[in-house]
Amino acid sequence: MTVLTDIGQLATCPSASTDAGLVDDAALVWDAGRIVWAGPASDLPDDYAEAERQSAGGRLVVPGLVDCHTHLAHAGDRADEFVERLKGTSYLEIARRGGGIQKSVRSTRAASDDELAESARARLGAMLRQGVTTVEAKTGYGLTLDDELRVLRLYRQLDAAGPQRIVSTLLAAHIVPPEYADDRDAYVRLICEEIIPAVAAERLAAFVDVFVEDSAFTADEARAVFEAGAEHGLGAKLHADQLTDTGGAALAAEVGAASADHLECVSDEGVRRLAEAGVVAVSLPIATLVLGQEPLPARRLLDAGAHVAVATDFNPGSAPSSSLGLALWLACTRQQMTPEEALRGATAEAARALRLDDGTGSLVPGAPADLAVFDAPSLATWLAGWRAEPAVRTVVGGETVWAWMPK
Amino acid sequence: MTVLTDIGQLATCPSASTDAGLVDDAALVWDAGRIVWAGPASDLPDDYAEAERQSAGGRLVVPGLVDCHTHLAHAGDRADEFVERLKGTSYLEIARRGGGIQKSVRSTRAASDDELAESARARLGAMLRQGVTTVEAKTGYGLTLDDELRVLRLYRQLDAAGPQRIVSTLLAAHIVPPEYADDRDAYVRLICEEIIPAVAAERLAAFVDVFVEDSAFTADEARAVFEAGAEHGLGAKLHADQLTDTGGAALAAEVGAASADHLECVSDEGVRRLAEAGVVAVSLPIATLVLGQEPLPARRLLDAGAHVAVATDFNPGSAPSSSLGLALWLACTRQQMTPEEALRGATAEAARALRLDDGTGSLVPGAPADLAVFDAPSLATWLAGWRAEPAVRTVVGGETVWAWMPK
Ligand SMILES: [Zn+2]
Ligand SMILES: [Zn+2]
Repeated sequence: MTVLTDIGQLATCPSASTDAGLVDDAALVWDAGRIVWAGPASDLPDDYAEAERQSAGGRLVVPGLVDCHTHLAHAGDRADEFVERLKGTSYLEIARRGGGIQKSVRSTRAASDDELAESARARLGAMLRQGVTTVEAKTGYGLTLDDELRVLRLYRQLDAAGPQRIVSTLLAAHIVPPEYADDRDAYVRLICEEIIPAVAAERLAAFVDVFVEDSAFTADEARAVFEAGAEHGLGAKLHADQLTDTGGAALAAEVGAASADHLECVSDEGVRRLAEAGVVAVSLPIATLVLGQEPLPARRLLDAGAHVAVATDFNPGSAPSSSLGLALWLACTRQQMTPEEALRGATAEAARALRLDDGTGSLVPGAPADLAVFDAPSLATWLAGWRAEPAVRTVVGGETVWAWMPK
Repeated sequence: MTVLTDIGQLATCPSASTDAGLVDDAALVWDAGRIVWAGPASDLPDDYAEAERQSAGGRLVVPGLVDCHTHLAHAGDRADEFVERLKGTSYLEIARRGGGIQKSVRSTRAASDDELAESARARLGAMLRQGVTTVEAKTGYGLTLDDELRVLRLYRQLDAAGPQRIVSTLLAAHIVPPEYADDRDAYVRLICEEIIPAVAAERLAAFVDVFVEDSAFTADEARAVFEAGAEHGLGAKLHADQLTDTGGAALAAEVGAASADHLECVSDEGVRRLAEAGVVAVSLPIATLVLGQEPLPARRLLDAGAHVAVATDFNPGSAPSSSLGLALWLACTRQQMTPEEALRGATAEAARALRLDDGTGSLVPGAPADLAVFDAPSLATWLAGWRAEPAVRTVVGGETVWAWMPK
């Protein structure tokens, strides 16, 4: 049993709330990898008087961050496209020239297993240093049965190796691969009739995701994929209304998706449908800014009662930064989310977007003892002054897996 | 003598250029704190065959970053205002309520010497970990003769203690302090007739700065301050055209300022005047975003031939983050500066904004051996995928003053 004392501010982020459950001058107790007590230090029960004590040094303690939207495993560098876009070339124009997702598909297919594993591991290490303890990871740069399975098996290995928990998503419906350009239906059938059943047979993914966009898949194609996924026990996620309003939000509500992600171009009707259906709206502010788009209407979503998560969308094209803290800072400064809403978005709401119902993303009794300590006295001070520094400490299942004190 | 080899990409940032002077597969040689050779590794002269060799591990090497606009020393936390502004309260409304700069003035005057020194030292440490080797530091939270001198003397101590080089700026003309609210002229006279002469007598500052804004000082008041500064050998800097177009850019040109900073609201005429006069336009994209403003027209300035620097504006209100890397990433994503232009903005152009003519901000023969190594193979890859990680190494005057390798 461990008692963490001298917590300047604790954010408990209870799932069934809309605030961050902030407690000043707090203490936190865990045992056997689970939280057993959280509250003001002055209320700490005498029962824990004999337990091992650790100090947070007056700092901020938050639930281990949950990055609920990443394209973790991929090969190849597309920094040249970042520069091209700054100079005014559009995302779609870059795709037409053979760049974009297609380029990552070529690089990823060509990469060795070791190369893919090593780069994914290095990225998880960087995320851990930022306090990220749960990572959703998508496929989508393989786009053949074997290449998609290869990445999902890698994710299973990474989850087993730890320390982070990996939640895997099949995104075979990322783009139509070039070899199916003249027969889209055949590719959708491949996903529904071969890839999904194979993934389900090995229990390799929790979700199936579809990029619903003029340049990718139609709503009808998405429905077919989600239906096949549901038959095999896979939840639904969508890349929705990113570049144009294609009714992705309404489709997410219709199919009972766990989340609808991006939503930069969501309509008022879409906002209403997401809120009604309890679909989590996942904001990806790094990609929004990198692609030069207006921010997602986070305030409209929150005011309508929708759940809003915040994630990195880490990928080699539109969001090459894996800093979830950067995404939170942008959620505040560009989307007028409060620090409490932003933090909930990367903890309790992100866990909801992954349908994790074991308490992940909250620091309440029974939840996993996954937490991060940042070098600031409060949540507002941390995010207002967010800077490029690692977490002071990251804990997974009660074990310290990262610690840093540069003084 | 030291030879740094295995540089994946070297950015030399020569002063008299408009690009970053990129060299792939480079080597760099310094001796007695100064660069003696830079170029492709294949051209490395045999003369250096016997020198000590260090490896950059295939990484990016850039000139030590220069943060040419910070409000380094201050006391008190204003994270509450960050949250208020997200909720729609304006900068000026917060000031009217007794928040804003006034609040920092009260906290800073009340702070002990040790408290001010300790927090400033901690902030310089964080900057050093980000590769920042030269820091401009303003006063402006004292606003009495003694309180302004106290901070300038602290900056002199910090510069002497190292490792960073500090360039000090007197910003007594930040706001009119409350005790002079009914007699602005008397405060301007205090600056011109007492503070500036005292600062000059102790050689405590290189520049005098004025916040030219409806809520602060008029152009005529600024002219008086710059005139007094010039008489005492102090260069001019302006907080110009930040919240409104007050003709600050034209004033900067008129008085031959080293830089005009902010410029979010600069007019076309102002852009033309800055370019003609060779005044460096200093972009402060963190403050721009925190205050919810449209980005500075960096492309219009660059296309007009103006010099554009990029800095943090680190201060407790509008820019509580000291991450110059974050400012560079925002300069790219929000202001369409290329990675080369952004890096120049925080190296050679920032040195120009500080009138440093000893080669600071460039890695060319004769320049100080101040440099930073980042964990990316190229400049474009570093900035496209910018994330919250320290520099791998920071070198000042040929000495390694920060090193980190989290693997
Ligand atoms: Zn995505
Ligand atoms: Zn400033």
